[in-house]
Amino acid sequence: MEKKYEELKTRLLEINDINAATAVLGWDQSTYMPPGGAAARGRQLSTLGRLSHEKFTDPAIGHLLDDLTPWAESLPYDSDEASLIRVTRRNYEKAIKVPPMLLAAMYAHGAATYQKWTKARPENDFAGIQDDLAQTLDYSRQIADCFPGYDHIADPLIDFADQGMKAASVRQLFAELREQLVPLVQAITAQPLADDSCLHESYPEDEQLAFGREIITAYGFDFARGRQDKTHHPFMTKFSLGDVRITTRVQENNLNEALFSTLHEAGHAMYEMGINPAYEGTPLAEGTSSGVHESQSRLWENLVGRSRPFWNHYYPKLQAAFPDQLENVPQETFYQAINKVFRSLIRTDADEVTYNLHVMIRFDLELALLEGTLEIKDLPEAWNSRYESDLGIRPSSDVNGVLQDVHWYGGLIGGAFQGYTLGNIMSALFFDQAVQAHPDIPAQIELGEFGILHGWLKENIYQYDAKYTANELIERITGEPLTIDPYIRYLYAKFGDLYELPA
Amino acid sequence: MEKKYEELKTRLLEINDINAATAVLGWDQSTYMPPGGAAARGRQLSTLGRLSHEKFTDPAIGHLLDDLTPWAESLPYDSDEASLIRVTRRNYEKAIKVPPMLLAAMYAHGAATYQKWTKARPENDFAGIQDDLAQTLDYSRQIADCFPGYDHIADPLIDFADQGMKAASVRQLFAELREQLVPLVQAITAQPLADDSCLHESYPEDEQLAFGREIITAYGFDFARGRQDKTHHPFMTKFSLGDVRITTRVQENNLNEALFSTLHEAGHAMYEMGINPAYEGTPLAEGTSSGVHESQSRLWENLVGRSRPFWNHYYPKLQAAFPDQLENVPQETFYQAINKVFRSLIRTDADEVTYNLHVMIRFDLELALLEGTLEIKDLPEAWNSRYESDLGIRPSSDVNGVLQDVHWYGGLIGGAFQGYTLGNIMSALFFDQAVQAHPDIPAQIELGEFGILHGWLKENIYQYDAKYTANELIERITGEPLTIDPYIRYLYAKFGDLYELPA
Repeated sequence: MEKKYEELKTRLLEINDINAATAVLGWDQSTYMPPGGAAARGRQLSTLGRLSHEKFTDPAIGHLLDDLTPWAESLPYDSDEASLIRVTRRNYEKAIKVPPMLLAAMYAHGAATYQKWTKARPENDFAGIQDDLAQTLDYSRQIADCFPGYDHIADPLIDFADQGMKAASVRQLFAELREQLVPLVQAITAQPLADDSCLHESYPEDEQLAFGREIITAYGFDFARGRQDKTHHPFMTKFSLGDVRITTRVQENNLNEALFSTLHEAGHAMYEMGINPAYEGTPLAEGTSSGVHESQSRLWENLVGRSRPFWNHYYPKLQAAFPDQLENVPQETFYQAINKVFRSLIRTDADEVTYNLHVMIRFDLELALLEGTLEIKDLPEAWNSRYESDLGIRPSSDVNGVLQDVHWYGGLIGGAFQGYTLGNIMSALFFDQAVQAHPDIPAQIELGEFGILHGWLKENIYQYDAKYTANELIERITGEPLTIDPYIRYLYAKFGDLYELPA
Repeated sequence: MEKKYEELKTRLLEINDINAATAVLGWDQSTYMPPGGAAARGRQLSTLGRLSHEKFTDPAIGHLLDDLTPWAESLPYDSDEASLIRVTRRNYEKAIKVPPMLLAAMYAHGAATYQKWTKARPENDFAGIQDDLAQTLDYSRQIADCFPGYDHIADPLIDFADQGMKAASVRQLFAELREQLVPLVQAITAQPLADDSCLHESYPEDEQLAFGREIITAYGFDFARGRQDKTHHPFMTKFSLGDVRITTRVQENNLNEALFSTLHEAGHAMYEMGINPAYEGTPLAEGTSSGVHESQSRLWENLVGRSRPFWNHYYPKLQAAFPDQLENVPQETFYQAINKVFRSLIRTDADEVTYNLHVMIRFDLELALLEGTLEIKDLPEAWNSRYESDLGIRPSSDVNGVLQDVHWYGGLIGGAFQGYTLGNIMSALFFDQAVQAHPDIPAQIELGEFGILHGWLKENIYQYDAKYTANELIERITGEPLTIDPYIRYLYAKFGDLYELPA
């Protein structure tokens, strides 16, 4: 058995290396590639993607898994061996169910649609891309139909991103959350808007980046095992456990942009940097779910990085870095500015309170599209109506409406958005647990020290990565299924301090 | 046949894409990779290398080539189809003769020896690495022995880098060259040394790089299809015909370093940028020989970039960029400084006249090692004696002696050096032909215009890339085999203007 187990690991390592190369090519495409490289790069990425898929769906892997599964089941569930075989089998069963031809056609269509979208968005041309999107919807349904027996057609797609979650369970959780959020948003937005003009002075790029680097270094982002570059859209990518990179976008007249996206992406990166090194090169080191990943980015961005204790430490430093812009701005004004709640049209600019309403609109529309109760041609109107009813604000054009997010235009409709809100919910849940275990964490944050929090996250979350599903992880940590309670308590406590809130 | 030809091209394109990914990973390793990524990167590179070799040595490729060769032979020799099949077959025959196990062992040994060398060199520890080098010699002999029937054991290794060249033919050419060079070096070095102190003022890095970029842009380096980054050792790498990159090293107190290595690497890059786009993704776009490639880098570095007409145009610009350093330095002083001839120990710092003596020493020592007439343990003494007899200067330590060049410590002894001198010889040959065709080229250079020269090179050399071997290319262009005459004429004309020379 040990020999077969080693053979499996050898095969998985080869696939891991091909995937790492794909990631390097993708990073380079976004950071440094000259324009002339685009066409060949698309082809190179598709070649590597196909190779990796071929290698992973090789029947030899299926035979090894068949042979190894009884052995794995005789081992403790938590053991690395049992976990590796269990997780690999789960991924394998998913991979072999999708015909390679369908996958290739969908990738090619996704790449072409993405290119079209980069032009359609600035030109406000939804009509010009709606047939492509209809084709994407058709492909997405075909992918879902590779997994017969689902309760809801979105379930297989949700499961790709958030293993173990289903349309029904997410809907239930989101319904509970909406019930709490809507009155909260109404109460806050009825009150005067915070003044955030201090964030929109001119902040030189290099100093912004230096300040972000100082913070994430203190967080525990290890620059010997990572780096930061600039891209049009921020992201995190991993080539190995010793090479985890983040990217950042800087706006000179918007201090929010680079700072909080740096903290956000560093949260993703520290998760990857903290995985048990024994899992390097295996599917155990490939991320357990989009929700858990997002919980780590949001925790460091919001629960730490937008908190009072944090700025008690960092605001004097920020003032020192930007004396012309902030010398005369009181800390309270700055704190209110970075936590300004407002009805907005753009998800990525949204505050902590309204953000989830943006996500839920997209989640509901995805389900309706997949169910067939909404047609692509009616999507812009459905989008705008929901913004009007949920957020009290109607997009003036599709640029600020249905054309804003890349996700659907990248080739798949379904499963792309729920992770953002699951992540928010979990971020508060995990932070709450960490503080219960170490009540001095807020005091440490106030000193600019993050080691205890980082250590708790590493011990309880990072190291396991895909060994446990999100649900298993939450059960292990809290002893209960996922609940929104800590998140609601967090929002009420934080924003109750800033606004009059309903009881 | 067309169908089989397309199948061959499809397979070659997949291999090309894997090789391109390998190149991206290598570039990233040298430019931006954090130290923590090193171990996994080594493994990823080796995985991709193995995959590419497996795909290329797949017997299916052999069968396609067998089927296609009679068809290719019925087509004109010059046709793209015949050339693609001929060149692929030649590469395939080479690839299948080397057992994958030997190749893998040699790569692993080479990577480990390289790591050891990066420590052994600063520590002047040849003794500590000589056993590894002896193993490298053994592997090199084994590789050569995969090609029985050679005249000299170095022939197969020379042929890898310079297709069609052999130890005997290179020796003959080098003997002729040496006969000319030795009296030239003796005559020049007997005269007073040029004063190059003006090159060793403090030159800020950004301005150095900007000046180099201005020149190579005028040369025809297309930044929409390429870029320049900084590395410890300068190199050129290609990911596709639309993405060709160079790297540069900058020394603030040595103006030679960044400037001439930029011109040199841009010469390599423009060659790759000028290949017929129809060859993209095939072995026709993989470089015809190290000698021809080096001829292009040396042509732009030396025959253009170290010439009088060039500096008649650029010296006032250089003075304007560095007024504090150069305002009071006459152009003639600068011109003499960048063309200073001197007996030196380091190949990469050597001037145009002595450079080839450095190369010939290495070439002769390689042959002696492979023949078995020289043992590794005796290599430092052999090296030092040759420097004394050929250059009249003896290394004080192995750091400036046998430990200086990476080549042997990278895993192969044989075939690594002759290309440098072949390139020098060819650079003058090709430049001479270009000027014969367009006598106004020097006048154009004096105006900072390089289009006619670039156009001639593209039409006569770049576009074909591996379609013709070096020998075929030279015959096509000059109607004769390779000759050192234009190179010797060039050296005599250029340095005769600066020094008293023998008749």
